[in-house]
Amino acid sequence: MDALLQDIVRQCRPYGALGKVANYIPELSKADPDKLGLCLIDSEGSMHCAGDWQDYFTMQSVIKTLILLLALMDSGIGRVRSLVGVEATGKPFDTFNYSDQALTGANINPMVNTGAIALCTLIHGETYGEKFRRLLELTRYLSGDDTLEVDEAVYRSEKATGNKNRALAYMLKAYGMVSDDADEILECYFRACSIKANCAALARIALVFAHHGRDVTTGEQRFAPIYARYVNATLMTCGMYDGSGEFALRGGFPAKSGVGGGIMGVVPGRMGIGVFAPALDKKGNSLAGVNALELLSEALELSVF
Amino acid sequence: MDALLQDIVRQCRPYGALGKVANYIPELSKADPDKLGLCLIDSEGSMHCAGDWQDYFTMQSVIKTLILLLALMDSGIGRVRSLVGVEATGKPFDTFNYSDQALTGANINPMVNTGAIALCTLIHGETYGEKFRRLLELTRYLSGDDTLEVDEAVYRSEKATGNKNRALAYMLKAYGMVSDDADEILECYFRACSIKANCAALARIALVFAHHGRDVTTGEQRFAPIYARYVNATLMTCGMYDGSGEFALRGGFPAKSGVGGGIMGVVPGRMGIGVFAPALDKKGNSLAGVNALELLSEALELSVF
Amino acid sequence: MDALLQDIVRQCRPYGALGKVANYIPELSKADPDKLGLCLIDSEGSMHCAGDWQDYFTMQSVIKTLILLLALMDSGIGRVRSLVGVEATGKPFDTFNYSDQALTGANINPMVNTGAIALCTLIHGETYGEKFRRLLELTRYLSGDDTLEVDEAVYRSEKATGNKNRALAYMLKAYGMVSDDADEILECYFRACSIKANCAALARIALVFAHHGRDVTTGEQRFAPIYARYVNATLMTCGMYDGSGEFALRGGFPAKSGVGGGIMGVVPGRMGIGVFAPALDKKGNSLAGVNALELLSEALELSVF
Amino acid sequence: MDALLQDIVRQCRPYGALGKVANYIPELSKADPDKLGLCLIDSEGSMHCAGDWQDYFTMQSVIKTLILLLALMDSGIGRVRSLVGVEATGKPFDTFNYSDQALTGANINPMVNTGAIALCTLIHGETYGEKFRRLLELTRYLSGDDTLEVDEAVYRSEKATGNKNRALAYMLKAYGMVSDDADEILECYFRACSIKANCAALARIALVFAHHGRDVTTGEQRFAPIYARYVNATLMTCGMYDGSGEFALRGGFPAKSGVGGGIMGVVPGRMGIGVFAPALDKKGNSLAGVNALELLSEALELSVF
Repeated sequence: MDALLQDIVRQCRPYGALGKVANYIPELSKADPDKLGLCLIDSEGSMHCAGDWQDYFTMQSVIKTLILLLALMDSGIGRVRSLVGVEATGKPFDTFNYSDQALTGANINPMVNTGAIALCTLIHGETYGEKFRRLLELTRYLSGDDTLEVDEAVYRSEKATGNKNRALAYMLKAYGMVSDDADEILECYFRACSIKANCAALARIALVFAHHGRDVTTGEQRFAPIYARYVNATLMTCGMYDGSGEFALRGGFPAKSGVGGGIMGVVPGRMGIGVFAPALDKKGNSLAGVNALELLSEALELSVF
Repeated sequence: MDALLQDIVRQCRPYGALGKVANYIPELSKADPDKLGLCLIDSEGSMHCAGDWQDYFTMQSVIKTLILLLALMDSGIGRVRSLVGVEATGKPFDTFNYSDQALTGANINPMVNTGAIALCTLIHGETYGEKFRRLLELTRYLSGDDTLEVDEAVYRSEKATGNKNRALAYMLKAYGMVSDDADEILECYFRACSIKANCAALARIALVFAHHGRDVTTGEQRFAPIYARYVNATLMTCGMYDGSGEFALRGGFPAKSGVGGGIMGVVPGRMGIGVFAPALDKKGNSLAGVNALELLSEALELSVF
Repeated sequence: MDALLQDIVRQCRPYGALGKVANYIPELSKADPDKLGLCLIDSEGSMHCAGDWQDYFTMQSVIKTLILLLALMDSGIGRVRSLVGVEATGKPFDTFNYSDQALTGANINPMVNTGAIALCTLIHGETYGEKFRRLLELTRYLSGDDTLEVDEAVYRSEKATGNKNRALAYMLKAYGMVSDDADEILECYFRACSIKANCAALARIALVFAHHGRDVTTGEQRFAPIYARYVNATLMTCGMYDGSGEFALRGGFPAKSGVGGGIMGVVPGRMGIGVFAPALDKKGNSLAGVNALELLSEALELSVF
Repeated sequence: MDALLQDIVRQCRPYGALGKVANYIPELSKADPDKLGLCLIDSEGSMHCAGDWQDYFTMQSVIKTLILLLALMDSGIGRVRSLVGVEATGKPFDTFNYSDQALTGANINPMVNTGAIALCTLIHGETYGEKFRRLLELTRYLSGDDTLEVDEAVYRSEKATGNKNRALAYMLKAYGMVSDDADEILECYFRACSIKANCAALARIALVFAHHGRDVTTGEQRFAPIYARYVNATLMTCGMYDGSGEFALRGGFPAKSGVGGGIMGVVPGRMGIGVFAPALDKKGNSLAGVNALELLSEALELSVF
């Protein structure tokens, strides 16, 4: 297995030169496009790693997975589902192109920015500071990594350049989908996107989803199985932006990417995977990361199809 | 002439019951739907009025006419034209439905909110407070009414509920079309929309546009003729929201409406008209106002076609 | 006047090299991009010409003007207006991008292909062959040119490559806006687009519109003034495709262009103009033609604004 | 197992009254909304049925599954993938709303009409008659039901009312995506949609997909495993129209619905399912059918997530 992972890393590292590090958040553009890390944990809890798997990067959209989970845990499926739909939009993740001005929950999903921003309001907490702290705690808890923290430089960069997200938040307010202060919601969202993790952390979080909320080492049920299925299904249809259909073909399992270069892969009943490679394809998915997951899927027959 | 105007007011007043007073700005919903005022000033400066022509109301989108004019006077046609296009959008005035995320100047015009907000940045002034004061002064100057002021209650109401405009302003920032602080730009824009005027004031402003910047009573040239033509042409194709095509048929001259119920009509070379009736049709144009202008156009052959 | 026209032709001929002859209809791509003709007829019936004003070209979208007129004459304003709206779409002339599948009359106008195809059904005639013959006769009658005929090669080329128009016609059927056989309607439409005219013919047609249906030489009223106003207003807001707003600024009078390179200009109460120059700008308007009309408008103060 | 299926049928039959039988194809509107059939075949080939599982109905969009398969078998993944993409569109299955007129393969998928029509061109055959016969033979072969035939009345009804599909076919031609005669392609497509099947036939086809092309009873490999994965993945993300995301949550396995009321469910490695209930929800999926599959999924833990 270790040889396989190292082989995959070796084969896929050259993709770094073909992709493009995210530059709309200036701080992200400093990433090294040649980085590639891979970490896999199986049902027995055995971890296999290769490449730059210990490097930390900001989770960016990967955190949408946990925003959705925490909203489900705090507010239940009914409220989550009525606020934010579950259909792929056929559009880029940060689109504001809603026809006939009809922005409704049915037209967004938890994996596009609009949906994730809206779901922040369903996380419990007196203040958005508290909501964020609870999200960070959940991330640490599921990843088993207590050192996870916000990358302050990336956070400031997100905040400084996050005008499209501000536009989306005010659209949500304009259509009565959220009522809280836009700046406070965004503060929580920008901080969430800026949480640093590494491949091992993503793999451990993914492993819990893969086992429907159960920790395979302790046997402890960390959250309801139904929430895991909700998240996994959503990742399958919407997790890889408007490249989710292609990833269903190439990878064949639920996954969530972020423009920081991370991808969290959930193989139901079998394993959790974390990948990191900051150079992205045109849709915002890690180019080397997707290719690595495709090779891994072929080698280990990970496709659920 | 006075008999004609009174007859028109009498005929059109019942439309108040068929339209709907704007309610997305709570303060506007207090307007009396039965109000109808009409004022007309001809090339000799003779003024004819009927109905509630002395009533004050907030200009709302009518002020877009003067935002465009002042941007032209301060920054010139080149800069105005490159920031904001001149084509009808085929969409509601407050749309954020820009396909493929491609918000460019070519896809907006000075008479939709996005365009008017953008043009505020081309008005001269150290601060947005100063920009606004210069706009208010221009409005007073052209209307000959020094008492024009902001309706503070409406302004606060606009500001409190202006989330769609906030979304539009942040979209402009996200696409690099404006760089100033969104809140400051909007402060100027919300105040501008809240300037109170009456039919006489609108008619006097319109009269100057009708005579290409020249004051017919003093002979003074108040702004360059080319700016008047720019504004008049833009009103013709975009002034009545996505009902501009229909008004070209029914009225046949440049006009600008506002959700406060006012319409400013410019009959090139002939007259300036102000109408006020707060109940609106589905597109946001004063229902009784449009009907009054149609009757007036037929009676006096005002169509330029 | 003749010197002015010749000067304008000399100044504008170089634009031929900057535009692009239409090539989506193969036969049109054979046009000579250096051609430029100009013809103007005033209220006294005096004709002034310059350049290639005698050259024949296919009317293409210019014929939409007469399709609308004949539909109005045959079926009245009520039926025309309820089938096809009058608002600019903000989209290219051959778009099929109708949001939420809601193709309704309100979202199209007589100057986009969808609208013009729909209006063919309102022309009287037992068969579409007869409808077309009546349209051709009207074109000959208004232009005073009995030699006007279909360019058979262009017609066959249009028919062979007119798949987008076929798509639009079937959309109209799918939404219940037309019920006749799509092929027959299109036969009429393709033939209409392929009628050859020259600048003199366009100028004479325009002159009748400019005088509200009256023939200035004979004094005869050829059609109701209200139909002329309907057409003129529609040309102002929609006649130059999604460049109508810009032409309102630069030319300032109703005009209709075609991808054959012709433009018909209507200056209400004053003159009719025909221009021809086959190299087009990006929106499908004759590049040299628009520039020639702009110069003419400045020199003779033709803007209605 | 049989008790379970009967219980599900009993529980779900009332949904027939809440949905709506398809009426845009007149012949389909004659279906009995109270019908509900269910058939399930497991990996050992054991078949379990309940309700109206022997009733025949037209496959409609369910046949898109086999159009895709046959295009893959005949032309390979490369050509299929380059002609038609794999991303959910976020739009209804028969939309022609393509922004900026940019209809490209990347914006469609094999499960929307435009994509399925395009894929007909990749099926081998000298004529479209032959292409269709090969498709019908494949359908009979995989279903093991040699009696499958076209429902001629439905076919004629589809053809008579298929104007939206004609519009889509001409769009494909206009954008150079297909070059064959539109009427011939549609003849094949309309016939394909009109093939009658019953729940047992759908379940047997699904079973082959569930076992990656292998016939579990004979062990014979009927088509390449990679094509099964391609189809299954596409069904997961796009098979239930713009309700695919919701079905991923509720059912959790690849499935394809048709407006005839049929749904084919593929549970990879485990079973094939056929359901039939003609009353549809707003997105065009069988209402009782989806509910039945949800109950079945819960009872047998069929979700792949």
